[in-house]
Amino acid sequence: MDIEDLDLPELAPGWVWLAGAGPGDPGLLTALALRALAQADAVVYDALVDGRVLALAAKGAELIHAGKRGGRPSPEQADISRRLVALARAGRRVLRLKGGDPCVFGRGGEEALALARAGIPFRIVPGITAGTGGLAYAGIPATHRDTNAALTFITGHTAGGEVPANLDWRAIARGSPVLVIYMGLTHLGPIAELLIDAGRPAEEPVAVISHATTPRQRVLETTLARVAAEAAAAAMEPPAVIVIGENVRFRAELAWFAADAEATVLPDLPAGGG
Amino acid sequence: MDIEDLDLPELAPGWVWLAGAGPGDPGLLTALALRALAQADAVVYDALVDGRVLALAAKGAELIHAGKRGGRPSPEQADISRRLVALARAGRRVLRLKGGDPCVFGRGGEEALALARAGIPFRIVPGITAGTGGLAYAGIPATHRDTNAALTFITGHTAGGEVPANLDWRAIARGSPVLVIYMGLTHLGPIAELLIDAGRPAEEPVAVISHATTPRQRVLETTLARVAAEAAAAAMEPPAVIVIGENVRFRAELAWFAADAEATVLPDLPAGGG
Repeated sequence: MDIEDLDLPELAPGWVWLAGAGPGDPGLLTALALRALAQADAVVYDALVDGRVLALAAKGAELIHAGKRGGRPSPEQADISRRLVALARAGRRVLRLKGGDPCVFGRGGEEALALARAGIPFRIVPGITAGTGGLAYAGIPATHRDTNAALTFITGHTAGGEVPANLDWRAIARGSPVLVIYMGLTHLGPIAELLIDAGRPAEEPVAVISHATTPRQRVLETTLARVAAEAAAAAMEPPAVIVIGENVRFRAELAWFAADAEATVLPDLPAGGG
Repeated sequence: MDIEDLDLPELAPGWVWLAGAGPGDPGLLTALALRALAQADAVVYDALVDGRVLALAAKGAELIHAGKRGGRPSPEQADISRRLVALARAGRRVLRLKGGDPCVFGRGGEEALALARAGIPFRIVPGITAGTGGLAYAGIPATHRDTNAALTFITGHTAGGEVPANLDWRAIARGSPVLVIYMGLTHLGPIAELLIDAGRPAEEPVAVISHATTPRQRVLETTLARVAAEAAAAAMEPPAVIVIGENVRFRAELAWFAADAEATVLPDLPAGGG
């Protein structure tokens, strides 16, 4: 099947497409994202975009890194938005490519506002977010009739790097049977404490999914009380999503994805399977 | 770009892929879903799968409807699972295609469990869910730093058709700044009342997005107090997602998607734009 047969819109000169690349597996790219990769002559990408995805960009396209990676300094958000506007005004076909979905804790909304205010035509191309797709690759359905009629995504830190203080964690803990924390590895200890303090059972099942959907995927299954210590002991790396809820138990039967890295999880840890 | 160049797994005989078709726009199909459509010889689909998506199935593939449509009776869930098992055992290449994401209020988890217990090899292919992708096409970012560090998806009715009674609506209302209700059109009145009763402002902005991402997309912008009456007056149709939160206001600047149907929204209603 050729993407060109799908009658998709064209990424035209002077336009910006704000697209999600999904959590890592290139098979999770949408047709629109694949088309944009084939048509863009400038690709402004985040560190969370998988290298196998970037390799799909057209020959000759300019690849522009904009995002944290290792210890290197990160461009300010306003600088990134200005860059997008400048590239579009120069008549480039601009693909702004973000890990996951651009509008789920990805600041895509901010970039879209900057483009709209500058009069740059744009399209938002949603991507598979780790909070659903990463869970599926770990064998954990995001919802199940027996466990949850609601599902909450939370970002584990603010732009300043702190645990979000403007959230009513107690209400969230009581309200939503399943919580998915993005970018929560750094503050796992305080977050687990907040949730237990708010009434979540210390023995509630938790999964930490690192490098979801990639050959480096690793899944740690543990409990709310033990997750901070065990994630540290297992050296779980970002990016990771953390799932808290009874739906984690389905992994025992549903862990269909066998990542290369699963075998490297120490056998005395509750993770593994896969 | 050809999907065959991506080095994706094969949908082999005897396997079932549980895949999401996204909210409607064929451009939101993933590469894996496109490949499955090209390879499957049996496609078991729900009513929510867009006709333009089904048209991508291989010539000669058997298309099997399994899901409510209009007044026709719907197969029981257990019947669908048995059908999938039987098709796989007969050596077919089976694509189980659902609207949105198979594991976000889509009962994909239940079907995966049935396959696992029957010893049928399967893969889950996540799809774009309306709670993120549908919002993006309405010009509403699912999250924004200024409005929400958390995002909650809720199903508007149970398998029995009632408002979920096992949810702590008061806690959810207090905890999550942005709520996205799936399948909530039928119970919009009671849900809005529950939320106002739990402390959400009557004037909080709400958007109802019908037929999201398709040429029939319509968006009604209103408030929590008025949404039930206005959605009825505007004859908003399912499938619809309902967004409640301050992020709805960004639509004033971000409504980039011009659906054919937007022009048909009555001009004295707050919807439109597009």
